[in-house]
Amino acid sequence: MKIKAVLFDIDNTLFNTQVMASNSRRNAVKAMIEAGFDVDLGGALSVLSKIVRKYGPNYDNHYDRLLEEYGLAPNHRVIAAGIVAYHTTKIAYLVPYSDTIPTLLQLRENKIKLGVVSDGLAVKQWEKLIRLGLQHFFQAVVVSEDLGVSKPDGVLFSRAVEMLSLKPTQVLMVGDRLRKDIYGANKAGLVSVQILHEGSSKRKPKNQFEYPDYVIEKIGEILEILV
Amino acid sequence: MKIKAVLFDIDNTLFNTQVMASNSRRNAVKAMIEAGFDVDLGGALSVLSKIVRKYGPNYDNHYDRLLEEYGLAPNHRVIAAGIVAYHTTKIAYLVPYSDTIPTLLQLRENKIKLGVVSDGLAVKQWEKLIRLGLQHFFQAVVVSEDLGVSKPDGVLFSRAVEMLSLKPTQVLMVGDRLRKDIYGANKAGLVSVQILHEGSSKRKPKNQFEYPDYVIEKIGEILEILV
Repeated sequence: MKIKAVLFDIDNTLFNTQVMASNSRRNAVKAMIEAGFDVDLGGALSVLSKIVRKYGPNYDNHYDRLLEEYGLAPNHRVIAAGIVAYHTTKIAYLVPYSDTIPTLLQLRENKIKLGVVSDGLAVKQWEKLIRLGLQHFFQAVVVSEDLGVSKPDGVLFSRAVEMLSLKPTQVLMVGDRLRKDIYGANKAGLVSVQILHEGSSKRKPKNQFEYPDYVIEKIGEILEILV
Repeated sequence: MKIKAVLFDIDNTLFNTQVMASNSRRNAVKAMIEAGFDVDLGGALSVLSKIVRKYGPNYDNHYDRLLEEYGLAPNHRVIAAGIVAYHTTKIAYLVPYSDTIPTLLQLRENKIKLGVVSDGLAVKQWEKLIRLGLQHFFQAVVVSEDLGVSKPDGVLFSRAVEMLSLKPTQVLMVGDRLRKDIYGANKAGLVSVQILHEGSSKRKPKNQFEYPDYVIEKIGEILEILV
């Protein structure tokens, strides 16, 4: 196969976002409790999960809404305690999967170009790449906010392919979500690879575009696809 | 030239150790003053510099000696304040020079093997590589503590060359110190490159082995040597 480039999703592809998010939220609520928010940890965590689902992960006032759900007025000390604990924990978990960097290095050694296609706020996604120590690895980084569309819109994938001066069929897209990464990559004519790390939730494809060309469990397996 | 590998010193070669150390010490003494150590910042910093020179950078009780120099008994709160500020600052400055990672990536892309030859305590030097995000880049890492000898002992350089299955003449050694890196590399038959970043102190070679084969100001210039 004549693959010339590999594009990556960031979250749950280059690092374990799920573990980062759940530990960060848990530590945030613990710190809020320690600061005087008198609730049950488990209960508050499930209320918080609902709030995050409702307002999205990039909303600025999750903790205000959490207090509100318990009938409480905003308490800045409690909210700040949550924010500090969330960020401290998040930073500690912004570490690549153990085979991320070795695999990216091997791909570069094999003259494969690298890119990122990610949904989210541009500065937040770049912050992740920088904290992961990956900001210099990629020749093309496309974040949905910059283009005003989200995955699975094919424009995101096409833009990355264009930035690398390649054809879609020469490019592999690696991501975890069928509806976003696989559907989008297939629609745009790329070769699609679903990555399902241990513990990832699996579901079946719902339409023809959700069938990945390959399924892998570790980033390192990309090297076998390229042989 | 048929260079097959590049070896690097860590300190002041891959990152700015000088700036890290001076800011860390300054913030440590400031924190000690804030915790009750009633001295002049500038004066205490120069006393501390002498202590570091006398006992070496890996000594565990610099701040005890500092209090002692002022005729004070150990004050654990003050010492702990210094240690915390030192480490917080150190971590913030453990960042590669801006061209370190791009250059290492290009070298890998050109199938050049990479290694490290460093003086110091093995765990401390590995901690630096990990915090710099460089731990996966090198096929050979030699730290003086592991071999029981220090630079410029040729054994260190020869071991790295051996680990890469190469001949000394196929290997470039990049470091900042004439007496340690250049002398040692030349003695062991490697090609020597002195790196003098902006603001580095310069001196003249004192003997024939201290003459580097090349002098560069940025890591990126290695790529020009290899052409």
